[in-house]
Amino acid sequence: MEKKEQYTGSILVIGDEILSGRTQDTNSNHIAKKMTEIGINISEIRVIPDNKEIIIESINELRKKTDYLFTTGGIGPTHDDITAESIASAFDVEINTNQEAFNILKDYYAEIGTTFNEDRQRMARIPTGSTLIDNPISKAPGFKLENVFVFAGIPKIMVAMLENSLKYLEKGKIVHSQSIKVNAVEGDIAKALRLLDSEDLELKIGSYPFFNSDLDFGVNVVLKSVDREKLAKSVDKFKAFLNDNSINYNN
Amino acid sequence: MEKKEQYTGSILVIGDEILSGRTQDTNSNHIAKKMTEIGINISEIRVIPDNKEIIIESINELRKKTDYLFTTGGIGPTHDDITAESIASAFDVEINTNQEAFNILKDYYAEIGTTFNEDRQRMARIPTGSTLIDNPISKAPGFKLENVFVFAGIPKIMVAMLENSLKYLEKGKIVHSQSIKVNAVEGDIAKALRLLDSEDLELKIGSYPFFNSDLDFGVNVVLKSVDREKLAKSVDKFKAFLNDNSINYNN
Repeated sequence: MEKKEQYTGSILVIGDEILSGRTQDTNSNHIAKKMTEIGINISEIRVIPDNKEIIIESINELRKKTDYLFTTGGIGPTHDDITAESIASAFDVEINTNQEAFNILKDYYAEIGTTFNEDRQRMARIPTGSTLIDNPISKAPGFKLENVFVFAGIPKIMVAMLENSLKYLEKGKIVHSQSIKVNAVEGDIAKALRLLDSEDLELKIGSYPFFNSDLDFGVNVVLKSVDREKLAKSVDKFKAFLNDNSINYNN
Repeated sequence: MEKKEQYTGSILVIGDEILSGRTQDTNSNHIAKKMTEIGINISEIRVIPDNKEIIIESINELRKKTDYLFTTGGIGPTHDDITAESIASAFDVEINTNQEAFNILKDYYAEIGTTFNEDRQRMARIPTGSTLIDNPISKAPGFKLENVFVFAGIPKIMVAMLENSLKYLEKGKIVHSQSIKVNAVEGDIAKALRLLDSEDLELKIGSYPFFNSDLDFGVNVVLKSVDREKLAKSVDKFKAFLNDNSINYNN
């Protein structure tokens, strides 16, 4: 991949259980946080059903749209685990038993005294050309094919697989950010944010209202920039506005 | 909308703060759960940045793809709140001050003794042809335009707006489901699930492994059908398999 100031990424969450509301997805939040830390901007997260056609279409759209695509879910041994197959179809490559994955699984099941049955052997089927991603927990590996990283859906395993994938990722310029908790509502500070926004194009301003109760509400203002000095200046300007308008805040 | 057995829906979460990992989205899980209860199947959830072009494109794609589209986020008074404008552009209708919304907000700010400034007045800008959705918490309304429902991003407010939108939604056939917690790993039950899956096309089978520790792991198997009897039969069959294989489970 050519060197860039910043890289982009997308996340494809595969699983009916997320779409039915049965399970709250936390994987994409974890991936997003980690990527922000290393200068990879997640520009899209998509949750789709366990449907081969939709998986293939989404993979082909997102892997072209962003520098990296991370998928979660659908790589276990059951009938609804169709991610690996779908990746092979999306890339138009074969999918066969990967000897390395097969041996890892065979040794693991021998060690814990469990039959390495046909269904478990399915987890060794990996698209041709992939690099395995180590799964220290239940051994069945994830894999990487070009810019697509295929992780399990179980959060603990996904976290470990992501950790083991960091070595393959280019790191972008880190976006510095400062967050200011303002004891006011958005309507009180909108003007100041608009002025800051129009002044400096390298600054990104987020304004996140929260409302816990009639007594506990306000706005978290997050200022971001790859330029540390510009960020500091903007923060000073914003605080001056708050002081001028007798609005309380804390960092 | 013509009467159907089941309806489809999609969710568009608008907000940089979700993509950066700063905020964990819980809105889409809430919407998904509620829709499942009334026979509307969520077939896609998409998280996108506060970018007008991308918002417009996504709205136009999803509102055609599914019977209903629910959006969350971006309807406050600050510079990054561009959802209403984007909806207007997507539908190619005008956006002006909505007198009803204006009056609601004017009265509210008078009541709490806060200036109804220009930024707050922006929240009364609603695309032409929309129906307002009541916001009992901070008053600034959401709205519905054709099959698109536009909600706030603050969870408490979103929950209230969704509640106030149920009257506009067609209800589909409810999918009955039964979940069985199995003390085994997926590889032990994959065969049974595959057999069930091939036998009865009206059954949907989900298999959700969990792994809390070396001592606490297993699979939640969820069987679903719109046909209650077929569901009961499938559950019996699956339990018979578990009994035959001396696998423990509980409902």
